[in-house]
Amino acid sequence: MLAEIICIGDEILIGQVVNTNATFLSQELSKIGIEVLQVTSISDNIENIKNSLENAMEKSDLVVITGGLGPTNDDKTKIALCEFFNDKLVTNAVVLEHITKIFKDYVKKPINELNKKQALLPSKAKILINDYGTASGMWFMKNKKNVVSLPGVPFEMKHLMNEKVIPKLRKHSKSHIVNKTLLTYGLGESHIAQRIESWEKKLPKDIKFAYLPNLGRVRLRLSSKGTNEKQINAKIDNYIAKLLPLIKDIFVGYEEDAPIEKQIQNLFKKNNITLAIAESCTGGEIGSRLTKIPGSSDYFLGSIIAYNSSIKKEILGVDDQIIKTHSVVSKKVSMEMASKVRVRFNSTYGVSTTGIAGPTLGDSKEKIGTVYISISKKDKIITEKFNFGNHRERIILKTVNKVFEMLLKSIQKL
Amino acid sequence: MLAEIICIGDEILIGQVVNTNATFLSQELSKIGIEVLQVTSISDNIENIKNSLENAMEKSDLVVITGGLGPTNDDKTKIALCEFFNDKLVTNAVVLEHITKIFKDYVKKPINELNKKQALLPSKAKILINDYGTASGMWFMKNKKNVVSLPGVPFEMKHLMNEKVIPKLRKHSKSHIVNKTLLTYGLGESHIAQRIESWEKKLPKDIKFAYLPNLGRVRLRLSSKGTNEKQINAKIDNYIAKLLPLIKDIFVGYEEDAPIEKQIQNLFKKNNITLAIAESCTGGEIGSRLTKIPGSSDYFLGSIIAYNSSIKKEILGVDDQIIKTHSVVSKKVSMEMASKVRVRFNSTYGVSTTGIAGPTLGDSKEKIGTVYISISKKDKIITEKFNFGNHRERIILKTVNKVFEMLLKSIQKL
Repeated sequence: MLAEIICIGDEILIGQVVNTNATFLSQELSKIGIEVLQVTSISDNIENIKNSLENAMEKSDLVVITGGLGPTNDDKTKIALCEFFNDKLVTNAVVLEHITKIFKDYVKKPINELNKKQALLPSKAKILINDYGTASGMWFMKNKKNVVSLPGVPFEMKHLMNEKVIPKLRKHSKSHIVNKTLLTYGLGESHIAQRIESWEKKLPKDIKFAYLPNLGRVRLRLSSKGTNEKQINAKIDNYIAKLLPLIKDIFVGYEEDAPIEKQIQNLFKKNNITLAIAESCTGGEIGSRLTKIPGSSDYFLGSIIAYNSSIKKEILGVDDQIIKTHSVVSKKVSMEMASKVRVRFNSTYGVSTTGIAGPTLGDSKEKIGTVYISISKKDKIITEKFNFGNHRERIILKTVNKVFEMLLKSIQKL
Repeated sequence: MLAEIICIGDEILIGQVVNTNATFLSQELSKIGIEVLQVTSISDNIENIKNSLENAMEKSDLVVITGGLGPTNDDKTKIALCEFFNDKLVTNAVVLEHITKIFKDYVKKPINELNKKQALLPSKAKILINDYGTASGMWFMKNKKNVVSLPGVPFEMKHLMNEKVIPKLRKHSKSHIVNKTLLTYGLGESHIAQRIESWEKKLPKDIKFAYLPNLGRVRLRLSSKGTNEKQINAKIDNYIAKLLPLIKDIFVGYEEDAPIEKQIQNLFKKNNITLAIAESCTGGEIGSRLTKIPGSSDYFLGSIIAYNSSIKKEILGVDDQIIKTHSVVSKKVSMEMASKVRVRFNSTYGVSTTGIAGPTLGDSKEKIGTVYISISKKDKIITEKFNFGNHRERIILKTVNKVFEMLLKSIQKL
């Protein structure tokens, strides 16, 4: 089954929002073996919507549309769909009751005329009731092709997709797509390519191989498609088995198993150990990323964000003399931060970051992009110095990736 | 001038990366008055690239392509462009020298054959040298239409766009697009729409108006287009002046002025005051968001991420008895956290979050989604209780948005 995704909204075309809906839809369709040929973003314009839908239906068996279903006048998707399918809007009594209930129970405001209009829906579509909002999903069939229209609010779209669209599609999809992605840290893509050149040349045509470089790591993806999932998996695994010995020094795990934050969490829990962090230049990003994973409270005790130098002394307890002698961005201060936070939080591991994200130099004499990372255990401390370039956001994200890499490697040895 | 963006990469179509390149390009083109008609994402496939390019050139004067320019075999964009423009690849000596220098100075590894191949470029294109990487940009002209091909690595793409593409386009673009976006917090879109209905009806056809609801806030955007920027601005401002009295209780500022994190920073600096945070359920996200803005170290001293309950006692110094009597997620503990962090960091403001992001209840008897936020000053403390639903990531992000809203409103009163 082939699919196209159409995202509707002027906010996408002026760059006011990042189109994460397309990412989610692509992931979910791929997982059940539906290949996404194209993602198209267009404005809230009736003619554009109709044209894009027509083009998409020529190439694909399934078109998933998001956006343009809100109660306000700037939303045009329902009108466009009615014109395209030669349909008209009728009041759906079940949806009207559902909307009324939402306003009574959650919004705690009276329902108004705009809200009521959201129960006006195309007569030919199967209606997908939106448990978390007032914009219903719609499923049209025409010449054996499926057109599904979903709201643009990510939370509501995801709910409808997971609960009401994917289960139905899964029944009809006979093919499987298998993606396996190896996470590597520490070597650039061209040098990996050189190293694995003869392995790559031997890959059969039906296995696609891609390099995805990003902020200090390169992901290597093998993909294949077919009707027998077990067979495809076995074939890919066979090639991975030959790849692994070539990259064992840079390989940290599989992305599909879990993001690196989740792999770290799993290892901490398995070893029954705990973590505390002293973040400086990363400003809280490490803690924020780790705590996005449910269950993180089982091992992550907390952090001290010592953004201002004085906090490194007063809250973390780093010796004033050490800061004066070595400066805040130094090996010695980094080590002190990691040890002190470990001791203060009484955790198994203490991690620290201190560096200069720029654009100004602050209290330091080092260059912009200089970052020290330390990992402290009771009997051991590792400190490394990096230069992550001169772009503030990249420096922060590269530091976070490097912390995760160092931490994972350190616990894997336990 | 009308534009289309084409993003190339299988990783987009299987949802492995979020297409932030499209967002950036849309923003930058809009800023200089170029209207983006469509964003299309397709796979690394020569036929698809040629077809999409042909379709785009029918409707648009400018096509910006990103991706597929890497040194490895999965990248096909240069081949597709050569076929499309009936061109051939030739070695560009300047680019070869540039690549050699990058490997010598930064990568500190010898240049290999794959790297050298990146100096092979189409003979008919104007080459845009990539100061931060080895994949050059290319600019083709055909029948007065512009086709610009840029690398997919966001940092390199942004550099080429800002330094080498936008300055040239600006000279040719005669029209202007003005977007003004009002940030509102605390009222849903349908209720805003009802409140401003008669204002909205009076808007002229050439001003587009949109509602952008997201995680506890609604952005209201007015857009217009024309050749006289001053006139468009004046016209939009005139309508905003009539809108503001209707939404004064929910309006916090303009998005174009600055993101809310920057507005907070500006007010802290203007008032010469400082901030410290005690984050629990938000895990570091507040600090991370504030420190993404350069200059944040001037007012943001740091945080304590008291993720584990014991840290609330031991590091923050919240009274054990208070936690036992009221539980960790309570008004009393929230107030204590905000006051203690303010005193410990010696800051003007102390902010705290404590809540249950789920999926499990943890140490608390409150419902999932319950969050307390406190803002403490020397002589005053504000605490509010919220229920942000039952979706972990949404609870965290809604909490962060609410903290920014409460903090901004509090400082605006100074």
